[in-house]
Amino acid sequence: MVYGDRKPDQQEIDRLVDIITERVRARLGSGNASLLAPRDRGLCLDDTSDDCATCGACVIRRPWSVRAVEAAGASRVGAPGGIGKVDTDFAGMIDHTLLKPEAVREDIVKLCDEARTYQFASVCVNTTWVPVAVALLAGSSVKVCAVVGFPLGAMTPPAKAYEAREAVRQGAHEIDMVINIGALRSRDYETVFEDICRVVRAAKPAAVKVILECASLTDEEKVVGCTLSKLAGAAFVKTSTGFGQGGATVEDVTLMRRVVGQELGVKASGGVRTAEDARRMAEAGANRLGASASVAIVAGPQNGDNKSRNGSHRRGY
Amino acid sequence: MVYGDRKPDQQEIDRLVDIITERVRARLGSGNASLLAPRDRGLCLDDTSDDCATCGACVIRRPWSVRAVEAAGASRVGAPGGIGKVDTDFAGMIDHTLLKPEAVREDIVKLCDEARTYQFASVCVNTTWVPVAVALLAGSSVKVCAVVGFPLGAMTPPAKAYEAREAVRQGAHEIDMVINIGALRSRDYETVFEDICRVVRAAKPAAVKVILECASLTDEEKVVGCTLSKLAGAAFVKTSTGFGQGGATVEDVTLMRRVVGQELGVKASGGVRTAEDARRMAEAGANRLGASASVAIVAGPQNGDNKSRNGSHRRGY
Repeated sequence: MVYGDRKPDQQEIDRLVDIITERVRARLGSGNASLLAPRDRGLCLDDTSDDCATCGACVIRRPWSVRAVEAAGASRVGAPGGIGKVDTDFAGMIDHTLLKPEAVREDIVKLCDEARTYQFASVCVNTTWVPVAVALLAGSSVKVCAVVGFPLGAMTPPAKAYEAREAVRQGAHEIDMVINIGALRSRDYETVFEDICRVVRAAKPAAVKVILECASLTDEEKVVGCTLSKLAGAAFVKTSTGFGQGGATVEDVTLMRRVVGQELGVKASGGVRTAEDARRMAEAGANRLGASASVAIVAGPQNGDNKSRNGSHRRGY
Repeated sequence: MVYGDRKPDQQEIDRLVDIITERVRARLGSGNASLLAPRDRGLCLDDTSDDCATCGACVIRRPWSVRAVEAAGASRVGAPGGIGKVDTDFAGMIDHTLLKPEAVREDIVKLCDEARTYQFASVCVNTTWVPVAVALLAGSSVKVCAVVGFPLGAMTPPAKAYEAREAVRQGAHEIDMVINIGALRSRDYETVFEDICRVVRAAKPAAVKVILECASLTDEEKVVGCTLSKLAGAAFVKTSTGFGQGGATVEDVTLMRRVVGQELGVKASGGVRTAEDARRMAEAGANRLGASASVAIVAGPQNGDNKSRNGSHRRGY
């Protein structure tokens, strides 16, 4: 399991995913299953061995995953290991993002106007702005995506689930939750898994993206995070909050796409600021992009005002 | 209201506080009062003019405020405008803090061990670690303080209140919530006020500190934030999350102490790393300090390992 400086190859990743999946199943089949509320056990892994990760009946049992992949367009769904040349019309892949706490109402209005104009996939905002964004985007095809447990991911599972439910109740269509980074690094996989399960359940019918904050994790931890997200019924895995130590990298997107296969989406976020950044991420396997410089990405660097919106300090995205 | 480069004087602050208090009262007395749930209206401002900010009966009506000030010790309670020379035995004033998302279980164990050894006021942790900290500190006088809506403050009021309630239910004794910075900067004072009211109510009997994130605010916004915190029944106002653009300054602590008077506590946090920093903050009027370098502050710079615990990137505190 120790890779040193080199990246794990496909065979090693497959082996790791198998081991993790087996261990999670074994634990859930033993006394540790009581760590999850019965409703979560019922939701995420059936009591039979016929669970979401193996049944293949995703259209019926995980329609939000399928819808999310469909919504991104078949041409943009990455195959394991990256998909090579991609469509460069990125607008429909972009979650147009504004998460800095200093944002005021007029910033949110501008964000939504831009999203409507350029037909971005969604606007991505903090939960306090969900009602405003939902009202502003009524009648458009632009979705509202809300971040939950953001950006530290260190809330309790019930609190994170409550925040997700509240956002969906107010009209959010997608939820980007931060994984419990500390629990993952402490190898407390039950807590990580329960956390995602609860948010997935609370957010229904909204799709859930799980932010791994890759810059804080080892490759092994990233693989575990992707595997648990998939087992728990998430629709996407996502690289970064944009508030941490680093953003999306080609290496991370490639690794994540390999682990989740074609069943889940991969969202690259943090530092995606140009069309070239977007192209690199899409070619590595990303089918969704998180960006605040979205207008510059689709309309050229002379457009957009990322700098003024995100300030001079590090605010990711 | 425009101060330019100079700081507002006491007379101007008093005038501003009076205006804000009057406006909040007027709005709560009008149709806008319906923005608050009846229970919150009943909790934070009585229907009569005899409210918490003027009644003076704090011992009966806001015992948590009084307890918090008492607990800090009379010698450390700042008088308006700063208190000059202070006791330099800071341990009992310090919330020993670890909030970086990468923290693992053993980091929390170490934090609690240090807090027990040096008799810090509390450990300040993310809500996911509350049960661990409560268990580790059982039987000691060290309290457990949990951050809520942290560090962006951009959750909806019900979600923030739920997170606070959950933390208190799990044993947290104090709650440090982040004010809704975006709403404050948008002059949506109803949302700011409702947000604090809901957390104060949900957290009972735990004391609530309201983090203003001063580096993101103008002086006028800081005064408004302090005033609304006081009206809503908070026990403390606090300068910074440690994750924003700046930490505690003598100017901010002085301003905050002037606005809240002696009824509330003032917590200086963010960049408080030495005994000299602590002394400056206490002399400016702070009666609580948030720090991760707490051991170095009380036992000298050769002790403690702030650098290794907080990493090389900016994690405040």
